Amino acid sequence: MRSDLDHLMQSNNLDAVLVLGPGQHNPPMVYLTGIAHLSDAVLIQKRAQPPVLLHRSMERDEAAATGLQTIDMEKHYGDLSRLLELYGQAGGDLRHAGAARLAQILTDQGLQAARIAVYGRMDAGAAYGLFSTLEKYLPNLTLVTEGGESILQTAMLTKDAAEVEQIRRVGQITTAVVAQVAEFLTSQRVQEDVLVKADGRPLTIGEVKARIQLWLAERGAENPEDTIFAIGGDAAVPHSSGRPDDLLRLGQTIVFDIYPCQVGGGYFYDFTRTWCLGYAPDEALALYEDVLAAYHLVGSKLRPGTPLRKYQEMVCEFFHSRGHPTLQEDPLTERGFVHGLGHGLGLYLHQAPFFRLNAPEALRLPAGTVVTVEPGLYYPERSLGVRLEDTFWIDPDGPVAPLVDYPLDLILPCRLK
Amino acid sequence: MRSDLDHLMQSNNLDAVLVLGPGQHNPPMVYLTGIAHLSDAVLIQKRAQPPVLLHRSMERDEAAATGLQTIDMEKHYGDLSRLLELYGQAGGDLRHAGAARLAQILTDQGLQAARIAVYGRMDAGAAYGLFSTLEKYLPNLTLVTEGGESILQTAMLTKDAAEVEQIRRVGQITTAVVAQVAEFLTSQRVQEDVLVKADGRPLTIGEVKARIQLWLAERGAENPEDTIFAIGGDAAVPHSSGRPDDLLRLGQTIVFDIYPCQVGGGYFYDFTRTWCLGYAPDEALALYEDVLAAYHLVGSKLRPGTPLRKYQEMVCEFFHSRGHPTLQEDPLTERGFVHGLGHGLGLYLHQAPFFRLNAPEALRLPAGTVVTVEPGLYYPERSLGVRLEDTFWIDPDGPVAPLVDYPLDLILPCRLK
Repeated sequence: MRSDLDHLMQSNNLDAVLVLGPGQHNPPMVYLTGIAHLSDAVLIQKRAQPPVLLHRSMERDEAAATGLQTIDMEKHYGDLSRLLELYGQAGGDLRHAGAARLAQILTDQGLQAARIAVYGRMDAGAAYGLFSTLEKYLPNLTLVTEGGESILQTAMLTKDAAEVEQIRRVGQITTAVVAQVAEFLTSQRVQEDVLVKADGRPLTIGEVKARIQLWLAERGAENPEDTIFAIGGDAAVPHSSGRPDDLLRLGQTIVFDIYPCQVGGGYFYDFTRTWCLGYAPDEALALYEDVLAAYHLVGSKLRPGTPLRKYQEMVCEFFHSRGHPTLQEDPLTERGFVHGLGHGLGLYLHQAPFFRLNAPEALRLPAGTVVTVEPGLYYPERSLGVRLEDTFWIDPDGPVAPLVDYPLDLILPCRLK
Repeated sequence: MRSDLDHLMQSNNLDAVLVLGPGQHNPPMVYLTGIAHLSDAVLIQKRAQPPVLLHRSMERDEAAATGLQTIDMEKHYGDLSRLLELYGQAGGDLRHAGAARLAQILTDQGLQAARIAVYGRMDAGAAYGLFSTLEKYLPNLTLVTEGGESILQTAMLTKDAAEVEQIRRVGQITTAVVAQVAEFLTSQRVQEDVLVKADGRPLTIGEVKARIQLWLAERGAENPEDTIFAIGGDAAVPHSSGRPDDLLRLGQTIVFDIYPCQVGGGYFYDFTRTWCLGYAPDEALALYEDVLAAYHLVGSKLRPGTPLRKYQEMVCEFFHSRGHPTLQEDPLTERGFVHGLGHGLGLYLHQAPFFRLNAPEALRLPAGTVVTVEPGLYYPERSLGVRLEDTFWIDPDGPVAPLVDYPLDLILPCRLK
């Protein structure tokens, strides 16, 4: 968790963490500043010292509201074009100006020859240009660019109580909206096997999705990555998000996967139910029962310290025993169980830990992490897909359970009128 | 515009453009694929050839929906951990695996010794790690990392007719919501100089902002960067976004700056009005009249081909003549006219062209661009701020005008009951 950062810097021989970019929808920045209305900021956290936030002049009040120590970047370092003059670089290359300013900031922080881990949402090419140039300005600086084992990712792997409560609150909003959608669907009429509205016209997936956006906004959540509301053939491909013009037809599987976050780019929640309107055909019901059994199997076995791949193996073996293809026998299968069992979640929708077959034995389920469990079965040739997903907190002190309860039922009753 | 990309690649001696990251809230990717429900994709556009989109297996239908040529990345290149084995790298370094896969993809595209411009939303450190490693795999590859003069930014500088229409539609949603807010405020009661709701409790800025979120969602827009709705002392600092618990007090300036985008991270609109509820004190009215005059002055002079800095100079000189401090005499002033006059807008909320005093003479207002014009005056010690902003299309063929009209009035009438 966040309080581990100093310790992690020390054990990785790092002098500081440097985060660039906006104060919204930028997980590394939000992790250290909270959601803040900053368009372009620099955060420096030196080992065993409180963070320092450098901000634009006209965002001084927003920066101050973070409660961190702040420095007005424009007042102290001038704007980019002035820096360009200062450094006597060739005309108008903002990359050099940005790198020059950052070099001066790091020097003033005593970090010109430090080992620093860098983070923050940026354009990939701009980041490469910036850091390549920065290393020329400060030849003794070491920029530590990490893969999955980044210290920030490691810190984010486990959540403190306040973070868990924030995720739970997003979960409460999520499930409240799911309940609204269920209520909305079951209150429609049915004509010729599709839902129709009061005006007699058929309801579309586009209209359902528009309501989901609205109801999330109404409850104070944001939905930056869309929603999966996929019926029939689309339900049978895990990330097909649903076609706006499709109708809501009885007896087909609907995969409803919803993953909103706090307004401004805060904590996410991730949740999936599969519904059949009116009735479930036998083959849909059979798939559902296998997925439900896998969900309960994993749910009952979630224990801190277990190797992550054990869970993926457990579900592959269970589905195999029920006659379904899985990634274990065919890593490229598009039928049966075709994806990872789940993933960590927090300020990123997808982050470590990941349940993967080929994860090293040493990667274990950490106490205090928040993960999704989402077994699914998909048969594109039969236009059938079923997935069930909840977000679990691996409570170090207690039983492991979803952060928010919601019924797992398959069938949504419909009124034939 | 987009159709200039080939020509720009040629004149910059580039063989290809490479874009990484998701298909939502990622301007370079959205520019070339449209908004697409892709969590992690690779787009390669070779000079004089149609783009190729590499995607995850379970996003095959979403990738196909872009209409581009697609390659299933997992089918062709395996997942990262399999690549790791393949390349015999030290255990579990995802950075090497990602770079190895990208090296293989580029080689298969015949680009192993090419000059390539790279883009896409990524973590800054991850991008630096990825490209540093990639250059080791492919020593003859040249990654061209550009500053403000990137060819993608240059293409994005001008808009085709379809883009202008998309921006205008977001503008229509924006102004419709602004009208709803005005109607909502003017329909409240006033008690002791603050707006109160039907239940007799005072209305707060937090409640107004919640309604803005809701009404934007209702009309199909997204609001990833928050809204500025700032009264009194907050209105006097350009990017202070407003305190949720503040009340709506008569006779104070409210800066209402709203900048939503299409759902999924598409085109933005940017719009500001300044309101006084009930009445405007003389000093607020005087500031407003100067800002309004500056707005009309610039609006009447917007012509393709004019050096950008002329507009900034024009407004500084006008405000100076009315007795206000400006950036021209004091680049760090926090009183008077303290920011740039405006900026380009599109898939980025802020992009070139920028109106800046120190822009080189050669930087001119391009025909076909979309820019904001947003003069403002700020006096923190008097808790007064006024800004007016519209988004203009620099129509090559016709008169230059805001994309959507909306009244510029300062005073919102209130009913004393």
